[in-house]
Amino acid sequence: MGPGPINADPRVLRAMSAQLVGQYDPAMTGYMNETMELYRQVFKTRNRQTLLVDGTSRAGIEAAIVSLVSPGDRVLVPIFGRFGHLLREIAERAGAEVHVIEKEWGQVFTEAEIASALRSVQPKLLAVVHGDTSTTVAQPLEGLGELCAKHGVLFYTDVTASLGGNPFDTDALGLDAVTAGLQKCLGGPSGSAPATFSPRAVEVIDSRKSIEAGIASSADEVHATRIRSNYLDLAMIFDYWGEKRLNHHTEATSMLYGARECARLLVEEGVDAAVERHRVHGAAMLAGVQGLGLATFGDLSHKMNNVVAVVIPDGVNGDAVRGELLEDFGIEIGTSFGPLHGKVWRIGTMGYNARKDAVLTTLAALETVLRRQGAAVVPGGGVDAAYQAYASSVVDTSADEGSAA
Amino acid sequence: MGPGPINADPRVLRAMSAQLVGQYDPAMTGYMNETMELYRQVFKTRNRQTLLVDGTSRAGIEAAIVSLVSPGDRVLVPIFGRFGHLLREIAERAGAEVHVIEKEWGQVFTEAEIASALRSVQPKLLAVVHGDTSTTVAQPLEGLGELCAKHGVLFYTDVTASLGGNPFDTDALGLDAVTAGLQKCLGGPSGSAPATFSPRAVEVIDSRKSIEAGIASSADEVHATRIRSNYLDLAMIFDYWGEKRLNHHTEATSMLYGARECARLLVEEGVDAAVERHRVHGAAMLAGVQGLGLATFGDLSHKMNNVVAVVIPDGVNGDAVRGELLEDFGIEIGTSFGPLHGKVWRIGTMGYNARKDAVLTTLAALETVLRRQGAAVVPGGGVDAAYQAYASSVVDTSADEGSAA
Repeated sequence: MGPGPINADPRVLRAMSAQLVGQYDPAMTGYMNETMELYRQVFKTRNRQTLLVDGTSRAGIEAAIVSLVSPGDRVLVPIFGRFGHLLREIAERAGAEVHVIEKEWGQVFTEAEIASALRSVQPKLLAVVHGDTSTTVAQPLEGLGELCAKHGVLFYTDVTASLGGNPFDTDALGLDAVTAGLQKCLGGPSGSAPATFSPRAVEVIDSRKSIEAGIASSADEVHATRIRSNYLDLAMIFDYWGEKRLNHHTEATSMLYGARECARLLVEEGVDAAVERHRVHGAAMLAGVQGLGLATFGDLSHKMNNVVAVVIPDGVNGDAVRGELLEDFGIEIGTSFGPLHGKVWRIGTMGYNARKDAVLTTLAALETVLRRQGAAVVPGGGVDAAYQAYASSVVDTSADEGSAA
Repeated sequence: MGPGPINADPRVLRAMSAQLVGQYDPAMTGYMNETMELYRQVFKTRNRQTLLVDGTSRAGIEAAIVSLVSPGDRVLVPIFGRFGHLLREIAERAGAEVHVIEKEWGQVFTEAEIASALRSVQPKLLAVVHGDTSTTVAQPLEGLGELCAKHGVLFYTDVTASLGGNPFDTDALGLDAVTAGLQKCLGGPSGSAPATFSPRAVEVIDSRKSIEAGIASSADEVHATRIRSNYLDLAMIFDYWGEKRLNHHTEATSMLYGARECARLLVEEGVDAAVERHRVHGAAMLAGVQGLGLATFGDLSHKMNNVVAVVIPDGVNGDAVRGELLEDFGIEIGTSFGPLHGKVWRIGTMGYNARKDAVLTTLAALETVLRRQGAAVVPGGGVDAAYQAYASSVVDTSADEGSAA
């Protein structure tokens, strides 16, 4: 019940134990095309270039940035948590001139704040994290797509922590690049990064192939615009996934099976229904920790559905509570990073763990452990409040052993 | 029965369906330490920094090169097949000044040829493929380690295609960096890159962290020596796998389970016994294709145990043969790249497929398909020759349903 990675859905694990096929077997091409189509539904996009990057979610982020940004390009990164710092660092290493605006952890930017920075920096790329698990809040992205289009800015977001558990629509938001991972609301293991790219982004990326094609006019131009990575070169990855099926890496077939099953689960349930499930169980967990008398951290009006940050009460040893939960109840919850390390716990309700039995069990165990650690809690207050939250919700929340649906 | 990826060992696939644990769960740290120790045995090294890069074998190659090489550094790449070209390209994208020597496909370099180039180029890094599946031959690495040590050159090799199926000893060869993949002789799926680094390589890589630590004296120095990738920054990956367990990527847990099982299979069998198994079955397959009256490609005295290149006879449609083998017998064999595309088939005997039943079945099916396609073959000559090769070998080659051992 941490902020991710979390337990994988058993269906995903079973899918990953299927035997491999050769990477140019027609069956494999079929699996890849099916995976692309499934992720178009998950991302809510018509982008042809919707595919997997073979690596963790961080590989997806770096592939997007290193392929879109040439050395010297300006990049604007609004930072409101740990993963904004990661975007900044990756863009710097790609040779970009990075400009940042920063917000206190737990808060988000207004549209006007980002608009103002965008007008003053005039970047090639706006790179922003959607949901940042380090603070549990999600940056609203509405309005930024139009703004970017107006200023000729590419618009990228990392939805690793939010996709599948929070409202998100690639095309409606006007995004040019989106990358994700499996290990949060998608219910799979880390190791594959679903990603999607608009025709505008594809054009920028493919134009950098001119280097190889000998179109560049000078060695300096080659040096300036060639994509700095081979492994994360999206122009090559597009050709590998596309009709040409040009050899690049050897597809991580088992991870593809897993990623495909994650998307199948979401599409079978319905992406909107899955988001609503995360909302319901996230609301129950929030009500539960409040019912125990615990304080939460961060702007609740922008809290992600799938994780809550709980302030560690004064005098309570946060790590001891986490250790006892894991040791005695087999339940993992997280701490956080940087300014929040040792100050909050982060409790997730995502993917396979966005279930009523998981929420109630966690609240009951947390109450027990807190009491043993000498913390003041409202007896029964957590579970009672969660039950009340469920009663006021309108969806079927009965525990389901089979899948998380 | 292609040149890889190949069928995974069923034990590896079962291992990958195990439930996940949190990445800072003490159990996970235990799995990681165990995996490091197992791969020390597989690589035959005492290197502390023996770990997995989360991506395909290509990610391992790029991690090694981008972390060892700063822009402007000289790199020497002896090219004798497709993957030498890949090393060159990756080093170029890392900003290196790359020097190459080239050999006709199917041949290898003499030690004197590499030594001469090394003395004239005086590179920071010698990067050479060990076994190149595109041509089926392996470059002898003996003597190069001493030479590199004498000239202060870092010595890197890619053993993706050869490890576990051909004699290899990291420390005895004096290697500073070695990277691999699971999808060849290790019997697993693509998606995890085992790698090992000598103390000398670790020192070079860790020294580039001085940038973050503020030790660099100027912005230019930062630009010149900072590792260009975050995802493939081995200094950070060392700290993630090391005692500090500093957060970097989220470990691809299922791939780690798979990689660990691949190494367990090898260590249980004995690395030398596994190499001998590959020798026996590779020799039987070679005898078999020769017994059918087919010609082979490349210098047989340097042929890898685990793959043979077969010249497609005049008048035979190579793709039609491959298609019929796959369609009617469920057996995949490969074609090759570049100058060999459409000219040779590549037949593998590696990992789980280095088995007597797999060899004999493939030879019988190949004879049938070749005859149907109008090719001249020696009736029964393939299987007979393979039986004879097995009879003259001294190891137990009985088919074993359980594991590949």
